[in-house]
Amino acid sequence: MAGRAPKLDRLIHERLRLGILSALAVNESLTFNELKKLLETTDGNLSVHARKLEEAQYVACTKSFENRLPKTEYRLTLTGRRAIERYLDHMEALIRSMREH
Amino acid sequence: MAGRAPKLDRLIHERLRLGILSALAVNESLTFNELKKLLETTDGNLSVHARKLEEAQYVACTKSFENRLPKTEYRLTLTGRRAIERYLDHMEALIRSMREH
Repeated sequence: MAGRAPKLDRLIHERLRLGILSALAVNESLTFNELKKLLETTDGNLSVHARKLEEAQYVACTKSFENRLPKTEYRLTLTGRRAIERYLDHMEALIRSMREH
Repeated sequence: MAGRAPKLDRLIHERLRLGILSALAVNESLTFNELKKLLETTDGNLSVHARKLEEAQYVACTKSFENRLPKTEYRLTLTGRRAIERYLDHMEALIRSMREH
């Protein structure tokens, strides 16, 4: 019997959180509304998952005002980038083992 | 603003189901107990997720008796193998876009 359980960071693996992180990996920073549009999700869902990533310090969030409207901006932290690297390494190993057969 | 929502098959992406499928991708067939050991999970969890994969016809399940003990065996179907291929293609594209930055 070959194979073993994938060691994937659960915090990153969840679909919407992976979406948030992959968007922030390729953009310097994104506002709440940009992320919402990009990921085609709801305010509620995005809030919940962005907060989990913030709590893990994978993303940092700054709040400001633009034309008197509140603006929330997210960016990836160094911790977040390292966690993504580890996740991608694990995922690549998993893909390799599945592609071999 | 670059990137978009990852188009990952939700049925496959869930961590334990991905574990079941990746184990079956590299083994001709596995029994319920072998999968349970390999994925370090509980009877309940494995039952729930294996059933979802069966309902989607990604895995096929045969029940028999061995030394009067019931034995449940799982194997990947052709539909399942194709779904995995698509999932891996999407995941590879996502990894590429994240690695580029």
